[in-house]
Amino acid sequence: MAKVKVEPGPFIVPMPTVLVGAIVDGKPNFMTAAFVGIVNFNPPIIACGLNPDHYTSKGIAETGVFSINLPHEGMVEETDWCGIFSGKKKDKSTVFETFTGETLQTPMISACRLTAECRVVNTVPFAIDTVYFGEIVGVHVDEAALIDGNPNWSAIAPILFTFPDNGYWKLGEYIAKAWSVGKDFGK
Amino acid sequence: MAKVKVEPGPFIVPMPTVLVGAIVDGKPNFMTAAFVGIVNFNPPIIACGLNPDHYTSKGIAETGVFSINLPHEGMVEETDWCGIFSGKKKDKSTVFETFTGETLQTPMISACRLTAECRVVNTVPFAIDTVYFGEIVGVHVDEAALIDGNPNWSAIAPILFTFPDNGYWKLGEYIAKAWSVGKDFGK
Repeated sequence: MAKVKVEPGPFIVPMPTVLVGAIVDGKPNFMTAAFVGIVNFNPPIIACGLNPDHYTSKGIAETGVFSINLPHEGMVEETDWCGIFSGKKKDKSTVFETFTGETLQTPMISACRLTAECRVVNTVPFAIDTVYFGEIVGVHVDEAALIDGNPNWSAIAPILFTFPDNGYWKLGEYIAKAWSVGKDFGK
Repeated sequence: MAKVKVEPGPFIVPMPTVLVGAIVDGKPNFMTAAFVGIVNFNPPIIACGLNPDHYTSKGIAETGVFSINLPHEGMVEETDWCGIFSGKKKDKSTVFETFTGETLQTPMISACRLTAECRVVNTVPFAIDTVYFGEIVGVHVDEAALIDGNPNWSAIAPILFTFPDNGYWKLGEYIAKAWSVGKDFGK
């Protein structure tokens, strides 16, 4: 297949769509983000690339903690709204019913079926965005989105994001089990 | 909905499944990885959390460059195989037909519909994995996986990965356009 060179951009992998939560000026605030990925196995650490000028970033810098909230397909409008409007101009503290993490007092969204409390352990600034490395210290999952005590990803129904089409997508069909389906490849 | 606290782990977001490529001991090598995420908009930077003892990590450390290759659904067996077996014990240089990036001389996989050449710009070690920050300097897409010159994610058909079920998943249905679907939320 002929390959075409395209202009490099921040689009080479599908991304998770999350709502990053923090207390800012004493109130819960949430922003939509997709520059997010797990980077260390144990302790579990997530990297979040956020512009430090965001209202949420101000709260993270002040409190040293943030939450990751996974919206499901049915929350796509409010999720997108939280990416369009800044907490500097809109009060986002009443958009969602929230609960507070016992471990870090981070605000989390009740309607999200999986949420996590993260403590900032390092930051690395780049030209536009700063990477906030958060150790994941508390995870909360809807009882109905668990299977044998573990997250049931079909029930969590996370939203994926792609550039440069600015697309929101569903998690699709299950394909196979890792460390298993390929063990006899080439035999 | 009742929330259940579950043991924290590296599973709070769906992840992309990628093959990370590097020249090791003079030959192309590829390892499967999912601790990967975009973290800076411009220049585009991707964070890859890899155990530094991996054979691929040795190549990245020696050459300062790596490739990101997105396998599609039809490549799940060979992709999984590259995550089960180390290049220390299996010669992976002949598993895939490869091509070489003009910019960084990184090995890339012809069967992957989107591949990228990355230059290491920073590393941050954590307890298990080291984060290799790669600036994305070259992107190659199959001609048939482009639409109006941009990646067509339905045609690229990337594989997602989830913990702790070790699941490979398809990218699902398109939901909506970001910075658009939520603009009138709450009105």
